[in-house]
Amino acid sequence: MKKQSEFRTTRRVQFHETDAAGVVHFSWYPRYMEEAEHAFWRSVGLSVAGDSPYGWPRVSLSCEYLYPLRFEDEFDIHLRIVAMSDRTMQYACVFSLGDRKVATLRMTTVCVTQEGPNAPFRSTSIPAVMRERFEVAADAAE
Amino acid sequence: MKKQSEFRTTRRVQFHETDAAGVVHFSWYPRYMEEAEHAFWRSVGLSVAGDSPYGWPRVSLSCEYLYPLRFEDEFDIHLRIVAMSDRTMQYACVFSLGDRKVATLRMTTVCVTQEGPNAPFRSTSIPAVMRERFEVAADAAE
Amino acid sequence: MKKQSEFRTTRRVQFHETDAAGVVHFSWYPRYMEEAEHAFWRSVGLSVAGDSPYGWPRVSLSCEYLYPLRFEDEFDIHLRIVAMSDRTMQYACVFSLGDRKVATLRMTTVCVTQEGPNAPFRSTSIPAVMRERFEVAADAAE
Amino acid sequence: MKKQSEFRTTRRVQFHETDAAGVVHFSWYPRYMEEAEHAFWRSVGLSVAGDSPYGWPRVSLSCEYLYPLRFEDEFDIHLRIVAMSDRTMQYACVFSLGDRKVATLRMTTVCVTQEGPNAPFRSTSIPAVMRERFEVAADAAE
Repeated sequence: MKKQSEFRTTRRVQFHETDAAGVVHFSWYPRYMEEAEHAFWRSVGLSVAGDSPYGWPRVSLSCEYLYPLRFEDEFDIHLRIVAMSDRTMQYACVFSLGDRKVATLRMTTVCVTQEGPNAPFRSTSIPAVMRERFEVAADAAE
Repeated sequence: MKKQSEFRTTRRVQFHETDAAGVVHFSWYPRYMEEAEHAFWRSVGLSVAGDSPYGWPRVSLSCEYLYPLRFEDEFDIHLRIVAMSDRTMQYACVFSLGDRKVATLRMTTVCVTQEGPNAPFRSTSIPAVMRERFEVAADAAE
Repeated sequence: MKKQSEFRTTRRVQFHETDAAGVVHFSWYPRYMEEAEHAFWRSVGLSVAGDSPYGWPRVSLSCEYLYPLRFEDEFDIHLRIVAMSDRTMQYACVFSLGDRKVATLRMTTVCVTQEGPNAPFRSTSIPAVMRERFEVAADAAE
Repeated sequence: MKKQSEFRTTRRVQFHETDAAGVVHFSWYPRYMEEAEHAFWRSVGLSVAGDSPYGWPRVSLSCEYLYPLRFEDEFDIHLRIVAMSDRTMQYACVFSLGDRKVATLRMTTVCVTQEGPNAPFRSTSIPAVMRERFEVAADAAE
């Protein structure tokens, strides 16, 4: 199976995601990005969670908000892998509404194991079964 | 320590809890009730979660919405235990804004154990350490 | 166009909807129901919000929780109209995971108008453009 | 009244803010920061919303996640103003759990007016009534 470096999907804004300013609350953008990340993993036959002993806590996040989203807007999500190291992956994401760019996001996430639900996370090398499915996008520097 | 049957607290509405209708989204009311329930438990020296092997999934919930809450409203929460069985507790809750009744809620929750994070819940008798802290409110029938 | 009384859809559980017990937090069930309600309205060419002067605050909600949902579960939602009055609609909803019933919900909602974002809601007769699209399900009494 | 440049508060983690990894979901950190921002404004007699025609949508956000938060953790929030322009404010925020740094965040927000709930936001100069309450922290460059 060819390694994958990007994923495209769409998402419709739900009412409970809006706030009293009439637009999507800014805290929903990282959730939209995470939903796309998990759908990307499913598209290559993987799950970020499930029965696996691995987890992917977030190391850093950045968002630029360019245009507000409103109830029932259906927007496009374009997710790319822009960096991979032994233990981390970095994603960049663009949200668009038709021709208009809505937001850009960047997130770094680290592979960890956890011994039991309250044990600390320990960073670890990304397992081969995951590493062999993904690669950095050719246009990652953009 | 005297058994407790009720708890009072206040809660201020946060912006991210409002929706595009300018009011608190109705899905926040059970969260407000749960926050009060957990504060009630802390007030008697207990935690519903933490390192305990016990959990308290919800069996049923009902809400009557009487008056909308808006951003920065500071409302009163009155939580009472209205029933206890061997394995379940039932709470009733009233939210008020000054003299105005905002909502009434009722929730039944069951004591369970869980062997590992993905194992099924198994209902169990409420442990003595919990049972001895709580009792049904004298006005439970109201 | 034939009047509609029910709607079916599916929904996949997202990671941010789970809690530390490893299951979907109970406050998400009314959100899942509302998402289905709004998709039902879109399916008949209507929007519950948008530019319309009408809103649909909730009067009451009840949920029975039968089986927990976990990350990435894809469950079925069956929404029915079980009552309509001059100003209100009542929906019943069943969530299922394969053959297993996950939850049943019931929600009553009232048609209102609102003069400006901070003005009070005023209940009003359901407009003909909405009323003519919907009818009570034949099996509403079940 | 002396101009204010920083604000300190504490926040307890609620159960519905945790996820199936047993820690607070990363999307909650910007909400915690916003709650502190709004409390900061209340502490100087202002509201970011209410009846004012002004709003404060977010331009950019960045978060560094250093240590996970768990259910019932009570953590400290230290919010500072690190930049102000004619139309924007930039805040930096540190979350700590005892001596341990949990996260650092940075957020830029812009003053806007909006003619009606579905009208576009228009950026505008920060009104004097707001500007005269705030100033950039002396240690903003750190």
